[in-house]
Amino acid sequence: MFTGYLQFKPKLFDAEYNINAVNSLIGNNHQKCDLLVMPELANSGYLFSSAQEAFDASEKIPDGKFCTNLFNLAEKYNTNIVSGINERAGDKLYNSAVLVTPAGDCFVYRKTHLFLEEKLWFTPGDTGLNVFEINGDFGKVKTGIMICFDWIFPEAARTLALKGAQVITHPSNLVLQYCQKAMFSRAVENRVYTITANRTGRETNSGKELFFTGSSVIVDPKGNYLSSAGESDELISVVEIDPSLALDKNVTTMNDIIKDRRTDLYNL
Amino acid sequence: MFTGYLQFKPKLFDAEYNINAVNSLIGNNHQKCDLLVMPELANSGYLFSSAQEAFDASEKIPDGKFCTNLFNLAEKYNTNIVSGINERAGDKLYNSAVLVTPAGDCFVYRKTHLFLEEKLWFTPGDTGLNVFEINGDFGKVKTGIMICFDWIFPEAARTLALKGAQVITHPSNLVLQYCQKAMFSRAVENRVYTITANRTGRETNSGKELFFTGSSVIVDPKGNYLSSAGESDELISVVEIDPSLALDKNVTTMNDIIKDRRTDLYNL
Repeated sequence: MFTGYLQFKPKLFDAEYNINAVNSLIGNNHQKCDLLVMPELANSGYLFSSAQEAFDASEKIPDGKFCTNLFNLAEKYNTNIVSGINERAGDKLYNSAVLVTPAGDCFVYRKTHLFLEEKLWFTPGDTGLNVFEINGDFGKVKTGIMICFDWIFPEAARTLALKGAQVITHPSNLVLQYCQKAMFSRAVENRVYTITANRTGRETNSGKELFFTGSSVIVDPKGNYLSSAGESDELISVVEIDPSLALDKNVTTMNDIIKDRRTDLYNL
Repeated sequence: MFTGYLQFKPKLFDAEYNINAVNSLIGNNHQKCDLLVMPELANSGYLFSSAQEAFDASEKIPDGKFCTNLFNLAEKYNTNIVSGINERAGDKLYNSAVLVTPAGDCFVYRKTHLFLEEKLWFTPGDTGLNVFEINGDFGKVKTGIMICFDWIFPEAARTLALKGAQVITHPSNLVLQYCQKAMFSRAVENRVYTITANRTGRETNSGKELFFTGSSVIVDPKGNYLSSAGESDELISVVEIDPSLALDKNVTTMNDIIKDRRTDLYNL
């Protein structure tokens, strides 16, 4: 199975630009890719200064224009796509991600753990952390989604792994490098593949400024970094993985790291 | 507060040797140390080939000779000591650790997650993961204990952090280097100090052989490695820490990584 991330610099408030940027990168990619992960809030950019701004830059799932384009891409290139979406649902906003399949299915995850001022405009996710099965000539693969700051809570990746995720996709807008380093642990402690698609670039708005750290990573169940992007690269990186390896939870002949859990002794 | 680890090469089946080795290292240490962590199974060594061998190399807590020596050291050097002990309790063996205080108190932790053939001679721990308060001129500090392979289960360190641990002590007999790398995540995701005291050296028994990876580490709540030993060093390393930093769970002004947990959405 071929999996990858698309790392780019979304433009704040400019869905058209972001659609074109994504289309251009995918159009220029000539590697087969069965599952492609894009950054958090890829339709809208990140650095809002008010709830109204965030709302104005949002769209509905699945009918919004960035989303509609994802369906087109998924079908055209026969690829499953996971992308962050600034989602409008009635009068609420969610920091969401969609998983769009070539067949036109769409699964939605709404970010569980909001970071900093996201709490001012987004509603905390209500979907829980779920696993979706994708299929193709690579077989059937259980795919989980978490978004950016979810990484720091080991419960997030663990919940996905316990639900059977073989690949954890991870749209992100990271401003530090802690996560990229910690994904080693998330992969190893759960024996899963992880794909962190981070954005890059600088955003400024109303006197505020953020730098995003790029450095997207794909980690295998043994903690090997299969791909690492530069801080400011705009690119697609694809690697071949064997998702069946993520079904094997034995770190030794006598230790299954899921079955060895002693839930009676945890206070979580 | 001054905290450290003692990394050495225990000798299999030779508690006398191990007592002398520990005493020599502590005797030659001239740095103040309020909390010193020693490796797993420091009294007995690790590579048993039968339950009988493991049993013959075990001792009772607190009356065994290695333990008795720990009480003497704790009082003589005014230091709290955490050390792994091959513990005999009736006809059962536990892979345990004791926390011994200068005042003569003794707290016991029995390893929750047994690794490989440990399952053949040790009984899985029944104590749960607990926090003990130590005190001195450094104030009061909540100290947790986990042992070696417990590291791979994020639930272990998380349980300790949720019980208030500021410093997680971690006697180990690691044969790989995954853990030393992953302690970054354990520290950061829980905002605690971690002290991994690994052993070093090679053991052979009945045609089997193990190399231990040393490389003991102390990590602060922001993921900084305050101390890292070499693979084969026998030494004590002490660093000054500020355990009050581990009380601050705010990774941003709006994110307390403990209060932000959404236990209603986890399936653990």
